[in-house]
Amino acid sequence: MELSEHVVETKQIYDGNVVHLRVDTIRLPDGRESKREIVVHRGAVCIVAITEERDLLMVRQFRLAAGRALLEVPAGTLEEGEEPHDCALRELEEETGYTAGNLEPLFSAYLAPGYSTELMHAFLATGLFKRESPAMMDADENIAVDRIPMTEIDRLIADGELQDSKSIAGILTALRLVADR
Amino acid sequence: MELSEHVVETKQIYDGNVVHLRVDTIRLPDGRESKREIVVHRGAVCIVAITEERDLLMVRQFRLAAGRALLEVPAGTLEEGEEPHDCALRELEEETGYTAGNLEPLFSAYLAPGYSTELMHAFLATGLFKRESPAMMDADENIAVDRIPMTEIDRLIADGELQDSKSIAGILTALRLVADR
Repeated sequence: MELSEHVVETKQIYDGNVVHLRVDTIRLPDGRESKREIVVHRGAVCIVAITEERDLLMVRQFRLAAGRALLEVPAGTLEEGEEPHDCALRELEEETGYTAGNLEPLFSAYLAPGYSTELMHAFLATGLFKRESPAMMDADENIAVDRIPMTEIDRLIADGELQDSKSIAGILTALRLVADR
Repeated sequence: MELSEHVVETKQIYDGNVVHLRVDTIRLPDGRESKREIVVHRGAVCIVAITEERDLLMVRQFRLAAGRALLEVPAGTLEEGEEPHDCALRELEEETGYTAGNLEPLFSAYLAPGYSTELMHAFLATGLFKRESPAMMDADENIAVDRIPMTEIDRLIADGELQDSKSIAGILTALRLVADR
């Protein structure tokens, strides 16, 4: 089976700050045509930050798309030309006031590949230390930092207190990695 | 810290088959205004299907947003008024030809809460059996089924062969659950 789709026409719909929207007309391997609505996104990082006490440094932030504040790992969008590694250190410090002695890539994964180009680079941050003068928070965000014991994760997922897919993926991948150490 | 944003104006941008786009003007707790680009999505399900042999039933599907075929757990969008549980059984059968004797909820989580309302309901499917006459595949999709041994998961994540965030979250949550059985 040929797994591909050829774009025969692209229509630009919207050019925003975070998302761009286009609609592609595609030709399927059997010759039929269909439409694909594509949200174009610059890509992002998320950071699973684990303290010496085996707590996770997490954030609570109001998410209009969810209609409420969500518990998430620190995360943010790549700036133009920014390397994921640098973005991860910047976002960790902006959102938590901490920086990391060690930053290791966990995986890169699409968040919603049915319609979004967003590729998320997940990192494990350890060797954490608080900055003397924390970077300014992003003026457009209201974020509260929370420490979550690693032992609470299964309960938070099962009880619906952790409802962010990238955070579940990142944390559980990190736990498998650090369990071997 | 008040974690909320009040919408003062909504502008509808696009009304598509899969995504709707609107731009909200919001007022932050400190009184300043900002914009939020919101992709409105009906919600979806994904299914971690584990066979008696401890293989994962997965699918490979071309994703235009990723520019290539991705390895993913079976998944799909909720139809109007459809219950997540029913959608999970329908999508599992449409995409793999199998149905499940047992279907258990794993979690519900936002995929990209920075801009998308999409809430994904993840299920664990066991007691799998092949349908005598498999349901028709969705005519708009080209999907190949693959069996992945559970023992391969850490390698697939580390090597970048599994680059779908919901699949990583769903599979690793399921593995923690079945490890206790």
